[in-house]
Amino acid sequence: MKLCMIGMRGHSCYVFESLNEIPGIELAAVSPGCPEDSPAPLLENAAKCGFSPRVCDDWREMLDNEKPDIVCIDGKYDLHAEMCIEAARRNIHIFCEKPIALTLESLDAIEDALKTSSSKLVSMVGLRYDPAMYHAHRLVAGGAIGKVKLIYAQKSYRLGTRPDFYKKRETYGGTIPWVGSHALDWIMWFADSGFATVAATQTSEDNFGNGSMEIAAQAIFTMKSGALAEASIEYLRPAAAPSHGDDRVRIAGTSGVIEVRDGHIILIDAAGQRTIEPDTPDRKIFSDFVFGLEGRLNCLVDTRQSLDLTRACLLTRQAADDGTIIRF
Amino acid sequence: MKLCMIGMRGHSCYVFESLNEIPGIELAAVSPGCPEDSPAPLLENAAKCGFSPRVCDDWREMLDNEKPDIVCIDGKYDLHAEMCIEAARRNIHIFCEKPIALTLESLDAIEDALKTSSSKLVSMVGLRYDPAMYHAHRLVAGGAIGKVKLIYAQKSYRLGTRPDFYKKRETYGGTIPWVGSHALDWIMWFADSGFATVAATQTSEDNFGNGSMEIAAQAIFTMKSGALAEASIEYLRPAAAPSHGDDRVRIAGTSGVIEVRDGHIILIDAAGQRTIEPDTPDRKIFSDFVFGLEGRLNCLVDTRQSLDLTRACLLTRQAADDGTIIRF
Repeated sequence: MKLCMIGMRGHSCYVFESLNEIPGIELAAVSPGCPEDSPAPLLENAAKCGFSPRVCDDWREMLDNEKPDIVCIDGKYDLHAEMCIEAARRNIHIFCEKPIALTLESLDAIEDALKTSSSKLVSMVGLRYDPAMYHAHRLVAGGAIGKVKLIYAQKSYRLGTRPDFYKKRETYGGTIPWVGSHALDWIMWFADSGFATVAATQTSEDNFGNGSMEIAAQAIFTMKSGALAEASIEYLRPAAAPSHGDDRVRIAGTSGVIEVRDGHIILIDAAGQRTIEPDTPDRKIFSDFVFGLEGRLNCLVDTRQSLDLTRACLLTRQAADDGTIIRF
Repeated sequence: MKLCMIGMRGHSCYVFESLNEIPGIELAAVSPGCPEDSPAPLLENAAKCGFSPRVCDDWREMLDNEKPDIVCIDGKYDLHAEMCIEAARRNIHIFCEKPIALTLESLDAIEDALKTSSSKLVSMVGLRYDPAMYHAHRLVAGGAIGKVKLIYAQKSYRLGTRPDFYKKRETYGGTIPWVGSHALDWIMWFADSGFATVAATQTSEDNFGNGSMEIAAQAIFTMKSGALAEASIEYLRPAAAPSHGDDRVRIAGTSGVIEVRDGHIILIDAAGQRTIEPDTPDRKIFSDFVFGLEGRLNCLVDTRQSLDLTRACLLTRQAADDGTIIRF
């Protein structure tokens, strides 16, 4: 398998964390994806994995010349969609930072491009592979809490100092797609269901000088399964908090309640309440994707789910923008 | 002060917990409020407090004959409104189980009756006096987390075996008003603001044979202050859980995050994260109400807030019933 990488603005660290676990893969070339970004972070991480990829200023030329099997897309957020489309047109498999599109129109264009392509696409919802989430999901899927009825998913991040492109909707995409995508992904995954309806709220007031960036957002969903779900999303975690993020999921089912909090799993069922220390996952998102392409296993996330999640994020943002309830 | 009590279906235990702390109060008479209820629980609790009230089958006659200063209303849920109106017409102060009305029409009728009455009315939102909630509110009101931006309020209850009247909307009122009223009350109280908009969901599926009773519900609000808030409400706490309820509030502000969970307070601010053990409150809801009537202090909840909370509960239920966003 031949791999190229475009940009390192988001989570392409997922590639490097498992690159050396994939037999026969070659990181052939990298491109910063835009003139204002340097290829240095990509080259440094590649070197640590024992690769010396060529550097291409023009990512399209790189795709044409290198003809990779896989491309990792992690450039400017507002170029994700265009890069996905160009890769799909060349039948290159796509490992793309989420959200893969910042507008519904560009998401439609990706879907169109994939219809006539052999490319598979997976977005970087790597938090499915967080040890506690991964373990809790195995328990829920195994029936530990019965039928899923209600979900709460929380993303709480430190704000820190964000690059200027976070300050504009056109270059950032909004807090619901950027931060909230994980919450929506957990909801979809734990409910084992698509979304049916959404209502959402967001606010850019008191955002510490970050332009139009939303400092907080919330959403409620009904799922096609009949479950109810809600998300809480904010950048209000104090700098002095013990960790960058306070990721949580709490799921109530017909025979139990499970919660992921502080990296632990708390399960309450007919036997009472207990804390479960999560196993280390036996897989990682990027190697999983590649092994999936090779037919060796099923990656936890597939093309359909990556597209559906992106659409859900953009419709949730629209519900908040317009103050309406949207039916999927 | 002369007190009468009608019924003991809900939380009139609040009266008995502080009755002996109110100098000069007399529990003169009680009525079960309906033929199918026994006065025995009221009499037993009264006896423990040293009172031997008269028993009246007809609660209207009791109000006419006894002419109390205060009546505690805790009869059939669907009679709360009628009882409030009759008390208001007689200028009797009202300590009423929440929700004080099961329909918007009957709530309007209470408001109308109060306009020409000297009665004050407080609904039993006794969970403001929960030690951790009370202490956390003092911290938030004192500026511990800056400006309130986002609130999550959770009610998770054991289902147990519910009386038959829970199985019908007409006699129960719905899970959003019954269980959710506490969550909405905390939101209003911690945000120090009224509600601006609401969207909500609810489900009666998988409700273990409880008729139309909703087993779970969720809601998101914008507050007039600009804060966002959401509620999670369900009866899915397993019987083997370590307590009846899992009441929580989590509030993110511009300079900190505070959470009430398991009876503790967790505060994160510029100094880092720490757990605060709550003080025992120096007041209780019923004695607070009576002392407020006597002008000795301000009760934590007043007539306006009791009416506004009830309206918020009923509009939230309507938003869930109709699948619409409601503006207050």
